[in-house]
Amino acid sequence: MAVIDPDRLFPADPSTRTIARELYAHVRDLPLLSPHGHVDPRMLAEDQQLPAPAALFVSPDHYLTRMLFSQGVHPRSLGVPDRAGKVHVSDREAWRTFCENWYLFRGTPSRGWLEQSLTEIFGVSTPLGPGTADQVYDELTERISAPEFRPRALLKRFGLEVLATTDAATGDLSHHAKLASELSGVRVIPTFRPDAVTDPSRPDWLSSVESLGSLTGDDVGTWAGYLDALARRREEFKAAGATATDHGVPTAQTADLDAGSAARLYDWLRVAATSEEGVSPKDAELFRAQMLTEMARMSVDDGLVMQLHPGSLRNHNRALYDELGLDVGGDIPMPTDYVNGLRPLLDRFGNDPRLRLVLFTLDETSYSRELAPLAGVYPALYLGPAWWFYDSPEGMRRFRELTTETAGFYNTVGFTDDTRAFPSIPVRHDVARRVDCAFLARLVAEHRLPADEAAETAVDLAYNLPKRAYRLEGE
Amino acid sequence: MAVIDPDRLFPADPSTRTIARELYAHVRDLPLLSPHGHVDPRMLAEDQQLPAPAALFVSPDHYLTRMLFSQGVHPRSLGVPDRAGKVHVSDREAWRTFCENWYLFRGTPSRGWLEQSLTEIFGVSTPLGPGTADQVYDELTERISAPEFRPRALLKRFGLEVLATTDAATGDLSHHAKLASELSGVRVIPTFRPDAVTDPSRPDWLSSVESLGSLTGDDVGTWAGYLDALARRREEFKAAGATATDHGVPTAQTADLDAGSAARLYDWLRVAATSEEGVSPKDAELFRAQMLTEMARMSVDDGLVMQLHPGSLRNHNRALYDELGLDVGGDIPMPTDYVNGLRPLLDRFGNDPRLRLVLFTLDETSYSRELAPLAGVYPALYLGPAWWFYDSPEGMRRFRELTTETAGFYNTVGFTDDTRAFPSIPVRHDVARRVDCAFLARLVAEHRLPADEAAETAVDLAYNLPKRAYRLEGE
Amino acid sequence: MAVIDPDRLFPADPSTRTIARELYAHVRDLPLLSPHGHVDPRMLAEDQQLPAPAALFVSPDHYLTRMLFSQGVHPRSLGVPDRAGKVHVSDREAWRTFCENWYLFRGTPSRGWLEQSLTEIFGVSTPLGPGTADQVYDELTERISAPEFRPRALLKRFGLEVLATTDAATGDLSHHAKLASELSGVRVIPTFRPDAVTDPSRPDWLSSVESLGSLTGDDVGTWAGYLDALARRREEFKAAGATATDHGVPTAQTADLDAGSAARLYDWLRVAATSEEGVSPKDAELFRAQMLTEMARMSVDDGLVMQLHPGSLRNHNRALYDELGLDVGGDIPMPTDYVNGLRPLLDRFGNDPRLRLVLFTLDETSYSRELAPLAGVYPALYLGPAWWFYDSPEGMRRFRELTTETAGFYNTVGFTDDTRAFPSIPVRHDVARRVDCAFLARLVAEHRLPADEAAETAVDLAYNLPKRAYRLEGE
Repeated sequence: MAVIDPDRLFPADPSTRTIARELYAHVRDLPLLSPHGHVDPRMLAEDQQLPAPAALFVSPDHYLTRMLFSQGVHPRSLGVPDRAGKVHVSDREAWRTFCENWYLFRGTPSRGWLEQSLTEIFGVSTPLGPGTADQVYDELTERISAPEFRPRALLKRFGLEVLATTDAATGDLSHHAKLASELSGVRVIPTFRPDAVTDPSRPDWLSSVESLGSLTGDDVGTWAGYLDALARRREEFKAAGATATDHGVPTAQTADLDAGSAARLYDWLRVAATSEEGVSPKDAELFRAQMLTEMARMSVDDGLVMQLHPGSLRNHNRALYDELGLDVGGDIPMPTDYVNGLRPLLDRFGNDPRLRLVLFTLDETSYSRELAPLAGVYPALYLGPAWWFYDSPEGMRRFRELTTETAGFYNTVGFTDDTRAFPSIPVRHDVARRVDCAFLARLVAEHRLPADEAAETAVDLAYNLPKRAYRLEGE
Repeated sequence: MAVIDPDRLFPADPSTRTIARELYAHVRDLPLLSPHGHVDPRMLAEDQQLPAPAALFVSPDHYLTRMLFSQGVHPRSLGVPDRAGKVHVSDREAWRTFCENWYLFRGTPSRGWLEQSLTEIFGVSTPLGPGTADQVYDELTERISAPEFRPRALLKRFGLEVLATTDAATGDLSHHAKLASELSGVRVIPTFRPDAVTDPSRPDWLSSVESLGSLTGDDVGTWAGYLDALARRREEFKAAGATATDHGVPTAQTADLDAGSAARLYDWLRVAATSEEGVSPKDAELFRAQMLTEMARMSVDDGLVMQLHPGSLRNHNRALYDELGLDVGGDIPMPTDYVNGLRPLLDRFGNDPRLRLVLFTLDETSYSRELAPLAGVYPALYLGPAWWFYDSPEGMRRFRELTTETAGFYNTVGFTDDTRAFPSIPVRHDVARRVDCAFLARLVAEHRLPADEAAETAVDLAYNLPKRAYRLEGE
Repeated sequence: MAVIDPDRLFPADPSTRTIARELYAHVRDLPLLSPHGHVDPRMLAEDQQLPAPAALFVSPDHYLTRMLFSQGVHPRSLGVPDRAGKVHVSDREAWRTFCENWYLFRGTPSRGWLEQSLTEIFGVSTPLGPGTADQVYDELTERISAPEFRPRALLKRFGLEVLATTDAATGDLSHHAKLASELSGVRVIPTFRPDAVTDPSRPDWLSSVESLGSLTGDDVGTWAGYLDALARRREEFKAAGATATDHGVPTAQTADLDAGSAARLYDWLRVAATSEEGVSPKDAELFRAQMLTEMARMSVDDGLVMQLHPGSLRNHNRALYDELGLDVGGDIPMPTDYVNGLRPLLDRFGNDPRLRLVLFTLDETSYSRELAPLAGVYPALYLGPAWWFYDSPEGMRRFRELTTETAGFYNTVGFTDDTRAFPSIPVRHDVARRVDCAFLARLVAEHRLPADEAAETAVDLAYNLPKRAYRLEGE
């Protein structure tokens, strides 16, 4: 893949490209803010050597494994462990299988991320392919074993200012404490993700709630105690550096029950969860809906930024899930209704400047029809960047084209990377910066925005907006 | 903002831009037709001096006030009156607050409209911003007080041939009579908008219907009398110059009840409206649906062009509405079903050339999936231009990209501006002409349409199509 | 229309256009594969002279007749026969009417197809229009009567390798037998389309099922016999060269009933179909849903590729349908749910490499939200090309932009033309090749894909992918 072209992702028209280059020069070397992601804090706390190439790049990356599976390459042959944790191929074999099928990723963001990571982060410029699998494998193995490729060395080299992880409400914050005491120049902070204790449709809901109660000392047998435990736990996350919560939900439905009804629903769900029939989908939906509003209320109190990631139908591919478990590629988007769904929450807190609710979507039809109009009127609402399947050059372009005219740039939070692939973080940001500069360059070239304001906006999108939106200014 | 660049909104590629320029030369100076809008006829009838800058440009413009509110600037501080009509800041203070937040409008059509209006209409070329607020305010104030900035002087300067206002079924047509007798070279005509008397979910439905009856002398206590009153009132609008009706409805649902059922529904709604429970949403929806078909029937008879604006959930932001009332920015689009919704009406009148039904949408997913296929087969159907949140460069481009291949250009009505901001009318048309020329230029540059046919099409979109669609030829 | 420009449909930017030209040089002269279409096999079997110009190009083309009808030109005046089969105008009159309204097709794919067909296939380069109607008519008439414009001569000249027709389950395969014995260098093969025998909402369902039983000798009075008849008939199609089945359904709903329930449903439907009330919509939907899964099961067994074309509301324009019958332009797309709809089928067969299920859509919102994510994980799923209203330059571009990043190129089947207009086949392929090269050229110009890989991909999309997807390799 040779060296990455300096004009990558810029429009081909020479005058627009020149403008894009100039804008990009303003943002290229800005520090990175990663206020939402899925890096394992233990890896950083222990400064573990990165895993072998396939285990680093291939098997944990569901973008790669789902595409390969769709073309008949089983995840097992890529080193994805089965439910018992057993891996069935050597790392080198997995890497070879991946390289043989490299052509499948033409036109995908995965190709771009990997190419640019290998070249710019690992200095491996041999083009990928069946013929070069072993050579690249050996080069990578050598790099990985070098001290400058340890996680903490990379953290520094990447210019990361803040890296947020995503953590269960009952999660262990000791890694974060260690990191806070040992690192300087970068904050690695947790994010409060309470899905396991707020979604009664999960088989482990009740046990997760009990764990939460044990952790905080609250009586989670009552609605009041359950809410207290959540509030207390949020405070502990905040003390550990957290500035945000995150909520993964099937729909964007919210509810605003009176306290008595909410308590009765909670009591009933504790009974239903242990009954033979289990929790009904309708009751679970209502409880999740109510809990979003409760979380918003707590955010008003404690200032944690609330993130909402709705609209994924998890584990659509039943056989794949049965064999391999969560996150191996069977999640599929669904149509998502924000306009009616969010209304109960917004009626209570939508105009409250203390709440900051960042919305994501897997349903692009909502960009111009629902999300931009909502974010363009409610003070509490912000738009998260193009997410998941749309965290890609075309997806990001559509996001700007479809939201800017109604919501502007300043109701968006700039870029957050949402990756679990630690070494690809700088590349993800670089792609976003390039695509945003390309969009701004078009506005300049079409005389819709002066160049100086475009440059200021580019810097805001890359740095100032995420800093402000996620309240990362202070310590 | 200096002088507006002559290539504004044209594609950057030099060959395409050259073509766009040539096409634009054919349409730039064509007269303006504004067959749908919200200018106040009294302002023109009395030739009132335009209000002060903030009251002219800021407080009545919900595009501006909603964006500013979304970033924490309260409408009150922009001079929006409360429900009691009280304004809480001076006009100059409101203007300063607006200018301080001018950067929020980067990338939005509002910025483009305002920049171009100030420069080209008011000759104010000082760039807007916090530092220039007072200077621009003073320049504007001077212009506004000059006789050549009186509404009628502007009407003439704009080259308007027809300006339609939007008027309640019970509205006062005396301003239009005065204008008809006093103006020459331009027609200011009313549009019949009967929502208040056709939507029984409104609290003022029954009283509006009674007013209608008083006005026409019909017995609106019966279904037949109610229909007579509407037909008679339409005739009065027509006599006052109207060529169209307009219908703002939550959905595009239509119905075709037999006369007996329709009469029974009307009778029942008159009872329900005064009952404690009020009108049920389902009954209201059915009545609105039936009334669309009745209006289509009357259009077949009297030739008034029927416009349908469905899909807005009004006053989504409850607190904002409670404080400030209608049209202050809480309206949000909803998914809209045209395929099933319009079918009862189309079964009756869809193939009747006497009906002309112009469809608008706030749900862009319907462009290629529903609206273009429907307009591309039913003789009665025409597509209105990109509306509201989409009346913008990107929105207009998507409209053409998504509808032209199935519906062509000639099932659309060209451009109508839909603005309440009188001094921005020429700018709105200029933007649309530029964007359509940019789209046509791409077709020419890609050898999909010869340049001479593109030029003819550009003229049709800018002038001939609205003239034909809205039956503006006569008088 | 003079000569078709060699750069037609290529982006105007000179560097991107140069790349597009280079890519196109690799695919321009590749043989054509047409594994899905609606050419009449009898025409080929009998090598009939093509019909007169309007009967060739206008009256059978619902793209043309619906557009003209939408602007007040009745299909009768274009030579469309009424339900009694009577044609009301001369072919020349029909042609003149068409030419008078030629401007309506500006910006539509129909214009492009026809221009290019006339010029490149028929050597008629006089621009179409009211003034040239008779001249073009005469030129065309001359060409059509020449031996080199007989269907078989054209087949050869077009470089067609495979041409699939679409045939009812009870269809006559004798034309295909004749063609197989007489043609060399090209295969004309049938496609098994069983809608008439799998959709109990059709008035002719029961009689079609009986015909099927007579044909195969199975007792279609039982569920088992009905399934046997279908399986046997599929084998006969396969023996006649078929490699695929095709299924036109209102929705993508599938079902996976146990054998007993399915049998009871079948038994009940046979009763209901002869009852006064007829078959309920719900029962019909469930049966169609079940039959899709049965067809998938049979495809696993016999290897026929399964095509699914859901989402068309047929005959929306009731008056047009009543007067003229099927396929005259009243079909309108509907929102289509693939994520939930396909799940029962996918749970059974989605990961089975023996199944190949090609999905089409008339709901573009599903491209990025549903279809690409599904095809990007299920081994059995492939995406068919942009279909019907979207089989057009803008539609094809959106297809690639919205699906490639998630599904890649290799989960698509390349191009299939789906046309009933035999002489336009090469043009349809040429348009698709140009648009795909334009898309690939942008990736190259933006340094997202090396030129050599783009060229390989262009060839795959034009030739290798349809060959592989439709299992056309063998004899």
